[in-house]
Amino acid sequence: MSQEADSQDQIAVVLPDGSELEVPRGATLEDVAFEIGPGLGRDTVGGRIDGELVGKEVPVTEDGAEIELVTEDSDEYVRVLRHTASHCLAQAVQRLYDDVELAIGPPTDEGFYYDFDDLDVDEDDLEEILAEMEEIIEADYEVEYEQVSIEEARERLADQPYKLELLEELAEGGETVSFYSQGEWEDLCKGPHVDSTGEIGAVDLLEIAAAYWRGDEENPMQTRIYGTAFESEEDLEEFKERRREAERRDHRKIGSEMDLFSIQDVTGPGLPLYHPPGKTILRELESFVESLNLDAGYEYVETPHVFKTDLWKESGHYENYQDDMFVFDVDDDEYGLKPMNCPGHATIFDDSSWSYRDLPMRYAENGKVYRKEQRGELSGLSRVWAFTIDDGHLFVRPDQIEREVEQTMDMIDEVLSTFDLDYDVALATRPEKSVGSDEIWERAESQLRDVLDRRNLDYEVEEGDGAFYGPKIDFGFEDAIGRRWDGPTVQLDFNMPERFDLSYVGEDNESHKPVMIHRALYGSYERFFMVLIEHYAGNFPLWLAPEQVRVLPISDDNLGYAHRVKNEFDEFRVEVDGRDSTIERKIRAAHEDRVPYMIVVGDDEEEDGNISVRDRFEDQEYDVEIEEFRDHLQAERDEKRTEPDFLQD
Amino acid sequence: MSQEADSQDQIAVVLPDGSELEVPRGATLEDVAFEIGPGLGRDTVGGRIDGELVGKEVPVTEDGAEIELVTEDSDEYVRVLRHTASHCLAQAVQRLYDDVELAIGPPTDEGFYYDFDDLDVDEDDLEEILAEMEEIIEADYEVEYEQVSIEEARERLADQPYKLELLEELAEGGETVSFYSQGEWEDLCKGPHVDSTGEIGAVDLLEIAAAYWRGDEENPMQTRIYGTAFESEEDLEEFKERRREAERRDHRKIGSEMDLFSIQDVTGPGLPLYHPPGKTILRELESFVESLNLDAGYEYVETPHVFKTDLWKESGHYENYQDDMFVFDVDDDEYGLKPMNCPGHATIFDDSSWSYRDLPMRYAENGKVYRKEQRGELSGLSRVWAFTIDDGHLFVRPDQIEREVEQTMDMIDEVLSTFDLDYDVALATRPEKSVGSDEIWERAESQLRDVLDRRNLDYEVEEGDGAFYGPKIDFGFEDAIGRRWDGPTVQLDFNMPERFDLSYVGEDNESHKPVMIHRALYGSYERFFMVLIEHYAGNFPLWLAPEQVRVLPISDDNLGYAHRVKNEFDEFRVEVDGRDSTIERKIRAAHEDRVPYMIVVGDDEEEDGNISVRDRFEDQEYDVEIEEFRDHLQAERDEKRTEPDFLQD
Repeated sequence: MSQEADSQDQIAVVLPDGSELEVPRGATLEDVAFEIGPGLGRDTVGGRIDGELVGKEVPVTEDGAEIELVTEDSDEYVRVLRHTASHCLAQAVQRLYDDVELAIGPPTDEGFYYDFDDLDVDEDDLEEILAEMEEIIEADYEVEYEQVSIEEARERLADQPYKLELLEELAEGGETVSFYSQGEWEDLCKGPHVDSTGEIGAVDLLEIAAAYWRGDEENPMQTRIYGTAFESEEDLEEFKERRREAERRDHRKIGSEMDLFSIQDVTGPGLPLYHPPGKTILRELESFVESLNLDAGYEYVETPHVFKTDLWKESGHYENYQDDMFVFDVDDDEYGLKPMNCPGHATIFDDSSWSYRDLPMRYAENGKVYRKEQRGELSGLSRVWAFTIDDGHLFVRPDQIEREVEQTMDMIDEVLSTFDLDYDVALATRPEKSVGSDEIWERAESQLRDVLDRRNLDYEVEEGDGAFYGPKIDFGFEDAIGRRWDGPTVQLDFNMPERFDLSYVGEDNESHKPVMIHRALYGSYERFFMVLIEHYAGNFPLWLAPEQVRVLPISDDNLGYAHRVKNEFDEFRVEVDGRDSTIERKIRAAHEDRVPYMIVVGDDEEEDGNISVRDRFEDQEYDVEIEEFRDHLQAERDEKRTEPDFLQD
Repeated sequence: MSQEADSQDQIAVVLPDGSELEVPRGATLEDVAFEIGPGLGRDTVGGRIDGELVGKEVPVTEDGAEIELVTEDSDEYVRVLRHTASHCLAQAVQRLYDDVELAIGPPTDEGFYYDFDDLDVDEDDLEEILAEMEEIIEADYEVEYEQVSIEEARERLADQPYKLELLEELAEGGETVSFYSQGEWEDLCKGPHVDSTGEIGAVDLLEIAAAYWRGDEENPMQTRIYGTAFESEEDLEEFKERRREAERRDHRKIGSEMDLFSIQDVTGPGLPLYHPPGKTILRELESFVESLNLDAGYEYVETPHVFKTDLWKESGHYENYQDDMFVFDVDDDEYGLKPMNCPGHATIFDDSSWSYRDLPMRYAENGKVYRKEQRGELSGLSRVWAFTIDDGHLFVRPDQIEREVEQTMDMIDEVLSTFDLDYDVALATRPEKSVGSDEIWERAESQLRDVLDRRNLDYEVEEGDGAFYGPKIDFGFEDAIGRRWDGPTVQLDFNMPERFDLSYVGEDNESHKPVMIHRALYGSYERFFMVLIEHYAGNFPLWLAPEQVRVLPISDDNLGYAHRVKNEFDEFRVEVDGRDSTIERKIRAAHEDRVPYMIVVGDDEEEDGNISVRDRFEDQEYDVEIEEFRDHLQAERDEKRTEPDFLQD
C-alpha cells in the first residue's frame, strides 16, 4: 500500500445527490455507508466508485470520487445476487466434476453464466448441478472478502490457467487482488457479492452453450452454463413465464413459420433475404413512413451503398467506424459500404446553393447501412450486417429547430401509437467536450425543452449525455410483454455542417451554417420488424398482414363462388383455400397461418349471395353482406387498427 | 507466300445467299466480285472474309470461306469511306506538323478518329487541318494497296514506334502486311478503303480528346482527333443537326440543370446520387412498374446487395463475371456485391417446397446490381458501377411458358407505349451449344412463336442467337430523335433451375424442374432514366414532372391568393414563385425549369376566384375555374399522357 493510502488524511466523496462527505482516505464503501447511517451500513452489499461496480470491501482512495451504494433495495441488488449465484454454480460444478478449468462468471441483465473448460456436460446434467447449487444456498455460507498479494494469488490459482491469465493482467494495475470465498470454495473476483449464499432466494439453470474464451474465435471453445437467480420464487416464476412467452414470440421462429425472411449460409450471415410475405409487411411499413414524410414536406433522395472512403474521412466516420466497415480497393482508391446515410445527404445538399428562404430542406431515404459485427454477435433480424434506416436529415436555420423537432415528434408519436407502443422520452444535453458555440447550444437546448414542455411529457433530462456534436431527444418504448426497447432519436448536429462546409445565404446576405437534424421514425427496419413480429406474436394488424383474408369454401361445389367472392375483395390480399379438405381443417390452417379474417362460403351463403365472416379470435357471424364487410375492411385497414374488430365491436 | 496459295487449285466460296462459287485459291475479293459480274467488280471497295472486314485486294485462301462484298450501295460503305477519311486526317496532320507519331485511326458508327502522339493542337487548329484534308480530297489521290514483307515494313515504319509495335504483332500471323497509300502518304493498314480520296463527299472535324494508347491508363496519353465523313453534304448536315439535337438533350446537361442527379468525385465514379427532383421521377417510374407487377400477380422480395461468393460459384456467375465483380474478404470467406439478382431469387424459391398448383411464382425486386466497368468507360447514367433493375423472375411449369410470356409482353407493351417509344421484337433461338432437352427447347420455342404470331408482330427470328440456357425475346426501341436503344428482354432459363436444384411436385407426385423466366420492363432504371431525359429533352409528362405546376402571382399583392390556390392542388407537386420579380421573368424561369403548367394569378383572377393557365407551349387561357383545371390535371396525370394538353385539345 502506498504512503498516501496509509496516511489517515481525509478525503471528500461525492454522493448521488451531489452532496459531499468527508471520510478517511482508504475507507471502504461499507465504511462510507456506516458513516451515513448504521442501517445503510448493514444493508450495503457493494457499490460504484466513479461508475465501476465493486465490492463493499473496496477502499476509496481518491479525493472527489463519486460514490453510489448498492443495497437490497437497489435495482442493482439482483445483479449482485446473481454474481454470487454464478459462484455457487462454479462451486457446484467443481464439487461434481474433477479437473474443470474456470474461466469467467459474470451477472447479466437476465441472470448469469459461468464458462468452463474441460467440462463435458449436457442439458440432462443441469438438474444435478442445480441440486448441488441449492445445497450450497441452503448451507448459507458466508461470502468472505480477502485481499491477497499477487504472489500468493499465483500460488492459489496454480492449476487454473485462465484465472492465471486474468491475474497477470490485474498484476499490472496493483500489488494486491481480491478473492471471494464461500465455504470450501474461492474465486479471484472484484465482487460485489451478497453477504451469504442463503440470500439467493431462487435459482435456476437455463441452458448450455459454447463460447470462445474472451469471445475470440481463435481461442479455445468453452462450455457456458446459463442460469438465473432472484430474490424470491415468485420473481423466478414470473421470469420463466416471460421467457416462455418470449420464446413463443421469437421472431426467428415466427419468421420461418410465416415465411417472412431467411438467413442462409450460402448467401452469408447477417444478410437477410425477405420472402414475399415479409416483404409485403416491409412495403406497408415503408409506405406508412413515406406518406408521413411526404405530408411533412420531406423529399426523397437516393444515395449509393458504396462510396469512396474519402467521404468517410471528410465526415469523420472513417476514424471511428473503420474497423466496422466493409472496405475494398478499386484501382488506387479505397471504397467502402456506407455505415451511415448522413454524409451522402450532406453531399447532395452541398451540391446546390441555398437561400434562407429555401430552408428547411428535408431529405428522406430508406437507406441501407452496413456494420461489420462479429459473426457470433449476429442474431436473426436483431443484429445484422446490413440494415435499412428510414433515415431523414433536415438542414435548418437555428430559428427553425423548434418547429422541425416539434413536427418530428408528432411523426414519431403517430408511428409509435399506431403500433400501440407506450413510450418515454429523454433529453440529453451538452457534454463537457463539445463542438459549437455556447449560443447555438443554449438556443438549441432551450428550443428542445420548449417542445418537450409544451407536450406535457414527463421527460427525463440526461445532463451532459448529448453527443459532442449536439443535444438529442431519445425515445424508448415497451412492447406487449413489457420488454423495453430503444426507440427513435432526434439528434441535432452542429459538427457535420462544419465538416462539409455547408452553407446558406441569410437575410443579411452573409453565409451561414445550417444545423443538421438526424432522425428516423422506426430506426432500423430490420430491428423494428423484429420487434413488431414479437410484439404481435405474428398476429399482425389487418393493414400489415401478408394475407388479409382467406376464403374457405365448405365443399368443392362452392369453389366457384369462393373465387367470385375473392374477386369482390380485389384491393385486399386474399387467397382461396381450394384444397380438398374439411372446413374444420381449413379453419385450423388459417389460424396457424395467422390470417386476420376468414370468409366461409357454403351452399347457404352461395344461395343468398352473402358470406360468413370468422376472425382469428374464433368468432363467426353468418349472413353478412359482402359490401358491409368490405366497407369495414377498408376502414380497419386505412385506420391501421391493431386488431380485427368486425366481430368485436 | 505458301505453296498452297501459290498453286492454282480451285476453292469454293460461300456467298451471303448460301450459294457457292468456285474461284482459284488466292483470288482477291475484287476477283470474286468480277467473277460474279463486271458491274459488281467495279463497285466493290472491300468485303468480309469469314466476318472480318478487309480490303478488296485481300486474297481468299480457305475452301468454304464465307464472303460478303461491300459496294457503294452497302450500309457499310460509309464506314469504308470514313476509314479513308481517317487516313486523310493523318496525312493532313503530317503535312502540317513535324515529328508526329501515328497510333491508330479506325472508322466508328458516328465517324472516325485518329490518335497521335507528340501533337500539340487545340480546337482552334481543327479548321486548318480540315482545310488541308479538303485539299487532299480535292486532289482525288488514288488509294493504292500494297503487300509488303515484314522486313521492308520495319524499314518504312522506322520512325513510327507505335506502328512498329503493331507491326510486330502482325508479324506473328504471317510473312507480309498490307500498306495503303494516297499521294505522298502511306499507312500500315488492313483496309478496306474507297478507290480514291475524291469519293469522300463531305468531311468535318468534331473535337479533340485525350486517349491512352490501347485504352490502358498505364500507357502514354495521346491526342485523339474525332471527325466524320459522308457521301454527301446533305448527309453531313443531317448528322450535324442530329448531333446538335443530341447535345441539347444530353442527360448530363439536363440532369444538372434540373438538379436530377450528380456524380461526385468524393463519393466515387459510376455511383450516382439522386437529388430530390430526380428521385421524384424515379419514384414515379418505380410505382408505375410496381402497379403493373402487383396487378400481374408478382410478389415483391428483397435480397441483400452483398453475398458470399459461394452463391456465385453455385450459379456459375463467378466463372464469367469474377473480373467485373467488387469482392472483398470477411474473416475466411469471400463476399461480393451482387452482379445479378437471379441467384438471390432462386435461393428464396428454393427455401420452400412447392406443388404444381403453386406455380407460377412471380418474384419482383427493384434490385441493385454492381459491375466494375473501367473508369474510362463510365459516362453519366448510361454506364455506371451500380444500377437498379426492375427485375422479375418467374418460376413456371413448362406448360405455363406461353401464358406468362404473353402477360410479360403485355406489360412491356404497356410500358413502352406509355412513353411513346416505338419498338420492334426479335426471337433468338437455340444455339449450337446449349443445355436442356430437345423436348423443352422445342416446347418453349413453339410457345414463344405462338405468342409472337398471335400479336401480329413483324418480328425477326435470330436463329441460333439464343443464350445457351434458353431462347429469348429481345425488344429494341427508337427515341424521339430516331436513335435506337436496346429494350427489355424476356429470357427463358433451363440452366439455373438445374444449378440450384429447384423443384416442384407435379400432379404425378414426382419432382419436376421449373423453368425460370428472367424479365425486366425498363431494364436498368439508370439507363432508362437517361433515355427518358434525352427522349423528352427534360420536358417530362405531367405524371413524371418533379414540379407539376407553378403558381405565379403577378404582384406581391397576389401572394396570399397564390398560396390559397396552391392548397387547392395539394395532391400535386406545386410551388409558388414568391420572388420579387416581374411576371415575365417568372414565366421565363418556369419555362427554363421545364414546369408543364403555370397558374398565373393577378387581381382579376383573385377577384373572380379563378385562375389563368399557361402551358409550356406558351399558350394561355384566362378565367379558368380551379375545379375544371384540377379535374383535367388528375386525368392527365392518371392517364400518364405525354404532353400537357389542357390548352391543346
